[in-house]
Amino acid sequence: MSKGLPKRSEDYSAWYNELVKRADLAENSSVRGCMVIKPYGYSIWEKMQAALDKMFKDTGHTNAYFPIFVPKSLFEAEEKNAEGFAKECAVVTHYRLKSNPDKKGKLMVDPEARLEEELIIRPTSEAIIWSTYKNWVQSYRDLPLLINQWANVVRWEMRTRLFLRTAEFLWQEGHTAHATAAEAVAETKQMLDVYATFAEEFIALPVIRGVKTPNERFAGAEDTYCIEALMQDGKALQAGTSHFLGQNFAKAFDVQFAGKDGKLEYVWGTSWGVSTRLMGALIMAHSDDEGLVLPPKLAPIQVVIVPVFRNEDQLNAVSEKIQPLMKELRERGISVKFDTRDTQSPGWKFAEYELKGVPVRLAVGPRDLENNTVEVARRDTKEKKVYNLDNLAGQIEALLADIQQSIYHKALSFRSANTTSVEDYATFKEVLDGKGGFISAHWDGTAETEEKIKEETKATIRCIPLDAIEEEGRCMYSGKPSGRRVIFARAY
Amino acid sequence: MSKGLPKRSEDYSAWYNELVKRADLAENSSVRGCMVIKPYGYSIWEKMQAALDKMFKDTGHTNAYFPIFVPKSLFEAEEKNAEGFAKECAVVTHYRLKSNPDKKGKLMVDPEARLEEELIIRPTSEAIIWSTYKNWVQSYRDLPLLINQWANVVRWEMRTRLFLRTAEFLWQEGHTAHATAAEAVAETKQMLDVYATFAEEFIALPVIRGVKTPNERFAGAEDTYCIEALMQDGKALQAGTSHFLGQNFAKAFDVQFAGKDGKLEYVWGTSWGVSTRLMGALIMAHSDDEGLVLPPKLAPIQVVIVPVFRNEDQLNAVSEKIQPLMKELRERGISVKFDTRDTQSPGWKFAEYELKGVPVRLAVGPRDLENNTVEVARRDTKEKKVYNLDNLAGQIEALLADIQQSIYHKALSFRSANTTSVEDYATFKEVLDGKGGFISAHWDGTAETEEKIKEETKATIRCIPLDAIEEEGRCMYSGKPSGRRVIFARAY
Repeated sequence: MSKGLPKRSEDYSAWYNELVKRADLAENSSVRGCMVIKPYGYSIWEKMQAALDKMFKDTGHTNAYFPIFVPKSLFEAEEKNAEGFAKECAVVTHYRLKSNPDKKGKLMVDPEARLEEELIIRPTSEAIIWSTYKNWVQSYRDLPLLINQWANVVRWEMRTRLFLRTAEFLWQEGHTAHATAAEAVAETKQMLDVYATFAEEFIALPVIRGVKTPNERFAGAEDTYCIEALMQDGKALQAGTSHFLGQNFAKAFDVQFAGKDGKLEYVWGTSWGVSTRLMGALIMAHSDDEGLVLPPKLAPIQVVIVPVFRNEDQLNAVSEKIQPLMKELRERGISVKFDTRDTQSPGWKFAEYELKGVPVRLAVGPRDLENNTVEVARRDTKEKKVYNLDNLAGQIEALLADIQQSIYHKALSFRSANTTSVEDYATFKEVLDGKGGFISAHWDGTAETEEKIKEETKATIRCIPLDAIEEEGRCMYSGKPSGRRVIFARAY
Repeated sequence: MSKGLPKRSEDYSAWYNELVKRADLAENSSVRGCMVIKPYGYSIWEKMQAALDKMFKDTGHTNAYFPIFVPKSLFEAEEKNAEGFAKECAVVTHYRLKSNPDKKGKLMVDPEARLEEELIIRPTSEAIIWSTYKNWVQSYRDLPLLINQWANVVRWEMRTRLFLRTAEFLWQEGHTAHATAAEAVAETKQMLDVYATFAEEFIALPVIRGVKTPNERFAGAEDTYCIEALMQDGKALQAGTSHFLGQNFAKAFDVQFAGKDGKLEYVWGTSWGVSTRLMGALIMAHSDDEGLVLPPKLAPIQVVIVPVFRNEDQLNAVSEKIQPLMKELRERGISVKFDTRDTQSPGWKFAEYELKGVPVRLAVGPRDLENNTVEVARRDTKEKKVYNLDNLAGQIEALLADIQQSIYHKALSFRSANTTSVEDYATFKEVLDGKGGFISAHWDGTAETEEKIKEETKATIRCIPLDAIEEEGRCMYSGKPSGRRVIFARAY
């Protein structure tokens, strides 16, 4: 197959868009800003879901489901949250269609079926969930509530990009309620750790754990924690957020509990989410000009076996030879595809699986049968090596583990090489326009400076890293004193 | 705990509603007709999803995701389908809110943010999916497409009931495309079999496999196959449907493929779905006046262990004694809860787990410790028996399998006892108003007769059973000849 992907070095954005489509991950739909997640893309998302869901359950959470609709009066109850999302809300105003008397066979919205109160399609579910929690919480015995929801949400974005920013997207949103601020903060941080661990161990994506500036906080939160990753074009991508909500939603929805002393207090809340945006991070972090590079832990097909044959007898011989290996790989929990199609050449298949990011490819031909060998190619380095077929399963399992580690370390090296400490604003702008990446710099802590830098350079403060060292310095912009460095970048 | 559920014999409907709420399965939300699926209810739904998803994948299907929105012009393309759902459509007309100048802190729909074309929230996804398939199918090599989607859908129903009929519900919808009618019909029947197998083996619910009359067909289908179950109040419940769509959607969305001979032909389609309605079936099929009775295969907690203790030493002694059993049960894949709360009495806990339908309850007290015994109670029959603790895990595993079988057979006996063959309309009405249940009768095959019977008795033809025997008879209503019996019932 001819791939003809644009090159990253020439047009990173076109490369991304084409790759998402050509690798059968997703495509634009006929609905503005909404994507279709295609089977191959969805199967990666399912693997992400399974891993995350297990981590949520291992930390004591259970799943539930709340309505997609939020009545306007509930939506506006927490004012900051409502204000933050108002401009992106899809609104249901009617509940019926009828035949259009002027156009045979066509329908129109029935003007008589207007809702008394408009329904907002959830851009996030705090409002509907906290209005429910009100009835679930009476006493300290009802706390904590540790609930997660897998759902679709809608944010009417003006400029959309497959996976990275779409009007409808899939996500999970955790919503927890606690008796004390300390417990809620601990939960917020715990879930940030879950996200960071998932990003690093599954997506093989190194992330910075940090806290957002007040400007960049989730609307309605007291503190927003985040994980920030660096893409190959030097732009940052926020990969997950975890919010400490204080008592804001409890107050907006009057969620109080009687403590052990019988005194009524407002509940403390958190919320945290990751979305199909992680697919964008996965794609951009590792892939190359030949196509996807998938971390083995999230690859729907981990090993593909391509037989090289001229006739059915040869195919049968390869097939017979390869059966014990396939069986053993599957027993080890490794997903294997044996591509026996005779409508495509081996070369075409090699290119196809390269495009689709299958971590390990085996090729077996007539000469291999004679020699009891197989050619093993790894997708990440494109290294090829001939192995003896005996005891191969264990070696392939080790190879998959090595690839997982290796692409993580490659991404980590890339990030190190593209993280720059700067002391002055001129250098800052130079680095930003030159190599890009994360820039570690001193900032005076004011929203004013933050906004000016954003206006002038389009760079934002991605986060104040949790492991930032206390260090006396001067703000690169205002010269005012600063106690620690923050991370700047242009971002997705 | 005091349960005070209404009795089934006195008010079946109130019993159902209260049970759903008291057993923490679901509750009504502040959005008209939409429910909140609570954690315990959702964990049962997750088990259903996992089992069904595996069955779909084992039959060659993959998951994908399509937009929740359907532009009106696409929605109306398949006219029968559009007409069938038009009256239940939630419609998005605007994409932004703004501050209300007249009410501080309140929002209003921004009249300037009106969509050019209204978006329908999917009541079912044929339209959006077939408009996508158009681009996926060129040649016979692209067929079949075997795709499933797990999603939420919205149908604006006027009278709603938790799980059975809600404005928003969760479901899966399979949408497949084939080169021949025969292949599509085979797929339709295969998926009906998958549903029937799931209902019988997991929900322990016997079902009749049948085909709907033209009147009761899915809007836009050529044939609708269904599984029909009988509830304890003698009403029928349609538990799943599988539709042969013919070329209707292919023609509406111009989905053609080049056959091996190069000739263009329209694709043949199917769609099939089950929803959170299955939760209603599960609840109504087996539960009793004390609460839920869950089939072990779908129970979130299969075994609960309630320690009987007066002080911490006794609890510790029970705990130590019971550890090896818990470990062994878990190794066998059995989910176990050990309820050590000292805030509730054992009696309260017994009632609670009865309400929640936990299939097997163990109670262990000081005397049991002396005797190396444990009291085992099964939820379905309420039978209690004292067992020796040694080698208990295997016996409990067998007990769970026995309960699964036993509640299936109980439901099957109930259905047999409540299926009546009738020959004349007077008896039909008598049975319908008396014992209810399934009524097997001859029908002349006309929509006219079907509608009159429905008008006069509220009974509908649930299906023409696939295993109906060819049998000369006379329609109980019109006296006209009939070749086979059909199943009538009043239905949910």
